[in-house]
Amino acid sequence: MALIDTLLNHRTIRKYTSEPVAEPLLNKILEAGTRASTTGNMQVYSIIVSKDQKMKDKLAPCHFNQPMIKEAPVVLTFCADFNRFNKWCNLRNAEPGYDNFLSFVTAAIDALLVAQNVCVAAESEGMGICYLGTTTYLAKNIIDVLELPKGVVPITTVTLGWPDENPEQVDRLPLESLIHSETYHDYSDEDIDRMYAEKEAREDSKGFVAENNKENLAQVFTDVRYKKTDNVTFSNMLLEVLREQGFMNQ
Amino acid sequence: MALIDTLLNHRTIRKYTSEPVAEPLLNKILEAGTRASTTGNMQVYSIIVSKDQKMKDKLAPCHFNQPMIKEAPVVLTFCADFNRFNKWCNLRNAEPGYDNFLSFVTAAIDALLVAQNVCVAAESEGMGICYLGTTTYLAKNIIDVLELPKGVVPITTVTLGWPDENPEQVDRLPLESLIHSETYHDYSDEDIDRMYAEKEAREDSKGFVAENNKENLAQVFTDVRYKKTDNVTFSNMLLEVLREQGFMNQ
Repeated sequence: MALIDTLLNHRTIRKYTSEPVAEPLLNKILEAGTRASTTGNMQVYSIIVSKDQKMKDKLAPCHFNQPMIKEAPVVLTFCADFNRFNKWCNLRNAEPGYDNFLSFVTAAIDALLVAQNVCVAAESEGMGICYLGTTTYLAKNIIDVLELPKGVVPITTVTLGWPDENPEQVDRLPLESLIHSETYHDYSDEDIDRMYAEKEAREDSKGFVAENNKENLAQVFTDVRYKKTDNVTFSNMLLEVLREQGFMNQ
Repeated sequence: MALIDTLLNHRTIRKYTSEPVAEPLLNKILEAGTRASTTGNMQVYSIIVSKDQKMKDKLAPCHFNQPMIKEAPVVLTFCADFNRFNKWCNLRNAEPGYDNFLSFVTAAIDALLVAQNVCVAAESEGMGICYLGTTTYLAKNIIDVLELPKGVVPITTVTLGWPDENPEQVDRLPLESLIHSETYHDYSDEDIDRMYAEKEAREDSKGFVAENNKENLAQVFTDVRYKKTDNVTFSNMLLEVLREQGFMNQ
């Protein structure tokens, strides 16, 4: 399959066969993934590989017990990491100035570009992946389980394995709604109605609305899946994690 | 070329031919790129496409006049964007609770995974890309040039075009330094010496040290390229941008 077709055919895979991911293949996709660009080629990220069932069981509650964590043969936690770089600087009589918010963002960007590159590498080899957006919610718990030192913050998690399902591809908003030419063209009410029409008309969307006793799909997001009270709680917890991990000293 | 070889062969391309990127091809790579996973399939990002020379000239100082901005046929600014989603919620009698730090991080993650996917798509079609890590430094200026509304923050920028150079591949730290098995294994002084040895021994590294009159490569980073005083200044500016764009109301 041509590379671009691999990208076009992306599906999130949540069910995996019991076949393990062989070490040489895992190393190959990590090697390919870590060719991603990073700021100043500093490579201020780390990847924690969890294969041991005991460790996956400990990680599961950090991700609200989503079953992929326990069931996938491999779990990858991608972390913003200035710890290694700071140690290098300190050993070389160089004063690191990376205990601030910009440095966290720089390191998080590094980690995320590498994460996506690893996922593309895995899919190109026939594996399936699932991102867990919950990583930034209970980051403190993940830090404890994975024994992350100061200077290290988990930013996303990917479960990885051989697909044991072949789901339909999910919907995307029309490209015109995501792209702006030259300057940002803000959305009129008619734009929004048109851009979300297909999403709202889907049978699965209607199912979510019915299941949750809501008036429409937007309310499923605001009232059930991504609620303000949760967002505020997790925002404060994440800012506290950044302080504790030494990224808020500006 | 197999997809994984495209990833393994990645090089940053800073010089482009004058050949434009045809609109259908640009749309194809954007279409492929936007298949990337996003949190809850909310797709809370936008991509601003700059092709007009006047707009690229206006963007250039926001990136400290790195020449790629003016010279590349296409500049893509990837933005965390809850504005579109909030408008949808408001039109559907749903109360959006996304004016907080967690929501910024969620949207930034979406934007970055898509950015890397677009870059892989472009490289798979023979194009060259360069990331500009400066996007988070003068984000306020980029917001003004691109007319980004509240709820939108630029997070990374990519220049894109047909390669007019064939650079050597740059170095990477050994894989063992980036990967941790099961838990984080903190680095001893010997680990750091070993892991950075190849990087420090390179001729280009020695050139940077000599040019900048420093004792070693680490000091080139701490004293010249990524200085504490700059990091602190840009941290405070970025936090102010998050406040102004409505992401710090937790």
